[in-house]
Amino acid sequence: MPGTSNNRGSSRRAGYWDVRQRGFDGRVSVEEAIEWVDSHTPCLRIEEIPVEQSAGRVLQTAWQAPAEAPTNDCVSADGYAIRSEETVGAGNYNPLLFSIQEGITPLLPASVARVAAGDALPPGADAVLPFEAVQANQGTLEVSSAIVPGAGIARKGEQVRAGNELLPASQPLRPQDLGLAASFGLTALPVVRQPRVRLVIAGAKPCAFSRPGDANGPMLRALIARDGGVMETLCSGRSDRQAIAHAITGASADVILVAGRTGTGADDEAPLALAAAGEVAIHGIALRPGGTVGMGTAGSTPVFLLPGDPLACLCAYDLFAGRMIRRLGGRRPGLPYVAREFELVRKLVSTIGVVELCRVRLAQGKAEPLGSAEAGGLASAVRADGFVVVPAASEGYPPGARVEVYLYRELQT
Amino acid sequence: MPGTSNNRGSSRRAGYWDVRQRGFDGRVSVEEAIEWVDSHTPCLRIEEIPVEQSAGRVLQTAWQAPAEAPTNDCVSADGYAIRSEETVGAGNYNPLLFSIQEGITPLLPASVARVAAGDALPPGADAVLPFEAVQANQGTLEVSSAIVPGAGIARKGEQVRAGNELLPASQPLRPQDLGLAASFGLTALPVVRQPRVRLVIAGAKPCAFSRPGDANGPMLRALIARDGGVMETLCSGRSDRQAIAHAITGASADVILVAGRTGTGADDEAPLALAAAGEVAIHGIALRPGGTVGMGTAGSTPVFLLPGDPLACLCAYDLFAGRMIRRLGGRRPGLPYVAREFELVRKLVSTIGVVELCRVRLAQGKAEPLGSAEAGGLASAVRADGFVVVPAASEGYPPGARVEVYLYRELQT
Repeated sequence: MPGTSNNRGSSRRAGYWDVRQRGFDGRVSVEEAIEWVDSHTPCLRIEEIPVEQSAGRVLQTAWQAPAEAPTNDCVSADGYAIRSEETVGAGNYNPLLFSIQEGITPLLPASVARVAAGDALPPGADAVLPFEAVQANQGTLEVSSAIVPGAGIARKGEQVRAGNELLPASQPLRPQDLGLAASFGLTALPVVRQPRVRLVIAGAKPCAFSRPGDANGPMLRALIARDGGVMETLCSGRSDRQAIAHAITGASADVILVAGRTGTGADDEAPLALAAAGEVAIHGIALRPGGTVGMGTAGSTPVFLLPGDPLACLCAYDLFAGRMIRRLGGRRPGLPYVAREFELVRKLVSTIGVVELCRVRLAQGKAEPLGSAEAGGLASAVRADGFVVVPAASEGYPPGARVEVYLYRELQT
Repeated sequence: MPGTSNNRGSSRRAGYWDVRQRGFDGRVSVEEAIEWVDSHTPCLRIEEIPVEQSAGRVLQTAWQAPAEAPTNDCVSADGYAIRSEETVGAGNYNPLLFSIQEGITPLLPASVARVAAGDALPPGADAVLPFEAVQANQGTLEVSSAIVPGAGIARKGEQVRAGNELLPASQPLRPQDLGLAASFGLTALPVVRQPRVRLVIAGAKPCAFSRPGDANGPMLRALIARDGGVMETLCSGRSDRQAIAHAITGASADVILVAGRTGTGADDEAPLALAAAGEVAIHGIALRPGGTVGMGTAGSTPVFLLPGDPLACLCAYDLFAGRMIRRLGGRRPGLPYVAREFELVRKLVSTIGVVELCRVRLAQGKAEPLGSAEAGGLASAVRADGFVVVPAASEGYPPGARVEVYLYRELQT
């Protein structure tokens, strides 16, 4: 019965329900699982790091400008500082002459002073004529058009007022954010510490025709990095209950991911290992692909059990484990892909009672489903341009329906 | 005169035209400058790197699947392998009984065999019943609904056929791409070498009210990394002609960026330094902000002269220097931001004859210009959600016009 939470309940009271060779006793809804993730995310401390190393890192609180910019009226163009009122009436048939004074302060009547961008504005001047706009001739400047006051200058506080919110919280710092912080003379920024992740690869099964190599190790490592985490340890080939339990015990990581051995096969011992080393909160979610995902805690450390099938592993990571890593690092928790609306070229079929992630390909501005939610393996997530999240209550969509597609090649930062 | 290329011509024949205190003799169009970038991008060699380190790296040629996946018919669900034809007629009021055989091969009549995802399909079986769909009782299985042939199994080559294009060229490798490569047993991938960039900060001018710190160093470092480059050397505070010329001579980098000292002020000596150390191909482009950008070569190494004003530096980097870094690394050369169409809430004014990059903010699904192309300083690129590229031929757009906005927080990968 989708939406119920028998396993969660039973694991808390009477030990973990062993699904091996009998199947799941119920499935937790995606919403409940997300609630568990959100309520079990620890809080990481803040650390000060040099501005030039803080790209992609996240401020926990918004950053207010410590001063105004510019701090005083200044010149924003290379040229001649001038009193704009003295140019009134200048024209091609009425060029006005100014003398070019040496030194920039104070500006004498009918005079101009050579200035460069970033200079203080000479007292008296209220505009700057760029060099190419005028003719200079032996200490004399010919001005043949009027200039508006304020041209070529930047007023105190014009770009930034002290106290303005400049950098928001929860968003990875971009190149221009670093530049702005540095321009205010900051050398370090207080950012959320990067979540440390222990990755346990529970090992391929003996007979794995479709997987000569382990897909999940390299894939999860890259996903963790994408979401701002740091892989602290990689434990490979832990296949039996004891070895997995050992790998998730006493870790100094902020979160532990175990990949593989979460299903209903005889050797799917990851949930039993978690039950032995800590507590299984959820095992089995009304989700496709990725429904064998589990989560719980070992000591106070959150542990995610990700399916061994690489496509299911990707989907379960994105929705749950990645969500916690993004939250831990202070980022927005939602899927990190840009979502855009597209029209379906053909029917998209989905099972009621289960959230399905269906991969689609874009062609001629429309979205074409690549098959059912569980079809195609990891290759379908490589070929696809993105995926549609079909809610549990939906049976799918008819051709022509407009659906939100999460795009694998467009990332929110 | 926008669109002309006097500087380029004169620099080739009769030495560099010194713009200091007299202004530019003409401006090269953005299109011509992009043409120069594209025709002066060297080709980097390919290197083999471990799959798990290749996230974000780029294949020069598309990757064809070396084998089929699965390599043989196999099981894709944990449960009981069965002959689907033997389940025809099964129902709640007509449960059919099967004996659970030990060992999986071959499948006897009216029998099922326990299998797990990844197992070879037992000969004779053509479907797998998941454990939760059936009742097992002491060696006997009760089946109360028919199963369709193919359920719970994956046929040889169903996910990937040998020779299929799996990973495209010119696109940074994603987590799932690494996973798929690893699943085929690959341990290394042939990727384009990362471009090595020398960054020369030409130093703040003596009187810089608006810039107590150097914005360009941290910003460019992060931009280079975003575009797949590696900062090889950072030379700071090279302010005069000789020091800049020295810093751009004999570099082992693939491309050199000089930030600052490109304008028409008396101490704007970066172009003269490039003219001394190599050749100035272009100085001055019909662009705002960023019109003082220059480019050329020192020996065979491309050199970009980026404006010292941080906003102008960002814009000139994104359009030209970043383009070369992206091309060098095998990526798509265009702006790396996702572009989306929005309606303007108010008029966007632009100067004819000049390409203008105008920052906008999004509110209620519409785009609001943040001021003129050169206003607001770097803070405007921090506050903005993106920018509009107004072509040289356009005077801007009326309220209600639909414009393409390049989004600072959404990156194409």
